[in-house]
Amino acid sequence: MAKKAAGLREVTISRAGDPRIITDCVAVEEPMEVRVNGASFAVIMRTPGADRDLAAGFLLAEDVVRTADEIGTIEYCADVKDEGRDNTINVTVTGAAIARLEVRLGERRQVMMTASCGLCGRRTIESLRARVSAVSGQWTVPASVIASLPDRLRAVQEVFESTGGLHAAGLFDRTGALQLSAEDVGRHNAVDKIVGRTLLAGQHPLEERLLLVSGRTSFELVQKALLAGVPLIASVSAPSSLAIDLAIEAGITLCGFVRGATFNIYSHPHRIGA
Amino acid sequence: MAKKAAGLREVTISRAGDPRIITDCVAVEEPMEVRVNGASFAVIMRTPGADRDLAAGFLLAEDVVRTADEIGTIEYCADVKDEGRDNTINVTVTGAAIARLEVRLGERRQVMMTASCGLCGRRTIESLRARVSAVSGQWTVPASVIASLPDRLRAVQEVFESTGGLHAAGLFDRTGALQLSAEDVGRHNAVDKIVGRTLLAGQHPLEERLLLVSGRTSFELVQKALLAGVPLIASVSAPSSLAIDLAIEAGITLCGFVRGATFNIYSHPHRIGA
Repeated sequence: MAKKAAGLREVTISRAGDPRIITDCVAVEEPMEVRVNGASFAVIMRTPGADRDLAAGFLLAEDVVRTADEIGTIEYCADVKDEGRDNTINVTVTGAAIARLEVRLGERRQVMMTASCGLCGRRTIESLRARVSAVSGQWTVPASVIASLPDRLRAVQEVFESTGGLHAAGLFDRTGALQLSAEDVGRHNAVDKIVGRTLLAGQHPLEERLLLVSGRTSFELVQKALLAGVPLIASVSAPSSLAIDLAIEAGITLCGFVRGATFNIYSHPHRIGA
Repeated sequence: MAKKAAGLREVTISRAGDPRIITDCVAVEEPMEVRVNGASFAVIMRTPGADRDLAAGFLLAEDVVRTADEIGTIEYCADVKDEGRDNTINVTVTGAAIARLEVRLGERRQVMMTASCGLCGRRTIESLRARVSAVSGQWTVPASVIASLPDRLRAVQEVFESTGGLHAAGLFDRTGALQLSAEDVGRHNAVDKIVGRTLLAGQHPLEERLLLVSGRTSFELVQKALLAGVPLIASVSAPSSLAIDLAIEAGITLCGFVRGATFNIYSHPHRIGA
């Protein structure tokens, strides 16, 4: 039984104080437990659907896996019963991913040394860049293609249309043709689903692709794009300071406030042509 | 040196393909390390400001602390140098919070037994409800007050005004007067800042208050409101299925799509008067 991305709930509509009761569609949110080699690794609140992609993308972002080769199987856990059946997924990892898994679990054990030099945005970026190099992909795309992306993504946002409650992410080629899209109550999950799907399909680095996200662009979203090798991210909303700083460092073109024919370019504008 | 919530970045504005370079305000995002009794507990990506409130609200949501009495001091770590100075905060906790901290760290060690009964929304709610009872507060508020909240919050969103990049949360009394507001790149952080501030001020449960959030309402946001004892949550956007289910269970009135005079009520509509 596959879980649904939208569900029905009773809603009272208050129109200028005059209430009316209807049944309406809402975006489904359910916890999913991600196990790695049988051991519980994390619980993600997500919209059911593309769960294998989400698990793969999540483990890439968490630096447990770095390539599709390190992933064996991704399967719902057969030992789990009842409603939890579709909410528990096990990923088997091999090779160097096993050692990385230990490192990640070790970090959670909080044996991290108390550093006299604290966290800051600069060091957060340096730490990520030590692990992954800048994107490649030296090409240009017309500004009109960037401007067209939000409408193209909206056209396929089926669950959003019925619920208004989902974030979306879309992967496009350089002509602006939509290759892949994902919806989720979580912005990060929608991107993880796309990154995971393309990782499993052996398509990384995505150096000929553009990524559109429906919400604000945070550091973590740029990080996910960098791990997948995407050279251009566009959003209908604002980026954060750290998202911009990482995009500059990583060679990623970051566009924001894509609304109509006008948008902002926060880094590497050379990829945007007339 | 207090960090700023907004920063300047160079932006290329592409208007129908015609680029122009300006300097623009963007929302600042920086990592903050939360230590508990000197040991590293978590890293949160957040907008600087109200860091003590954020730390307190975060530890309440994480079920490390349950009352203000269990919090001793909340201070930036003096041993941290350079840019990281304002990004590392230590919370001392006492009493039963010490044992709860061990439990939380233990969960992260992933010694969780492999349960044959998996996660699902129903059990997620049951688990939370085992820890906290339903809200009290049997009163009504006119629909016109709910409709007025978004404009009242927007009027004080200073950083959003300059950056377009921040989520906001506002705490109101039953007449619709704004008591407290917070802004952050993260929706959850904005609510944690409000919950933390009122926790530290000894104001919980907030049974005479309304909470407005600027984005979608997820399970976790309703959870935070429940922990603070807020009986009514309103949002300009959509709730998730699990947010609705928890609000019904917890006795919380949940309003969504508050736009103009019309809005939806997903649970306990008895608190909304004509």
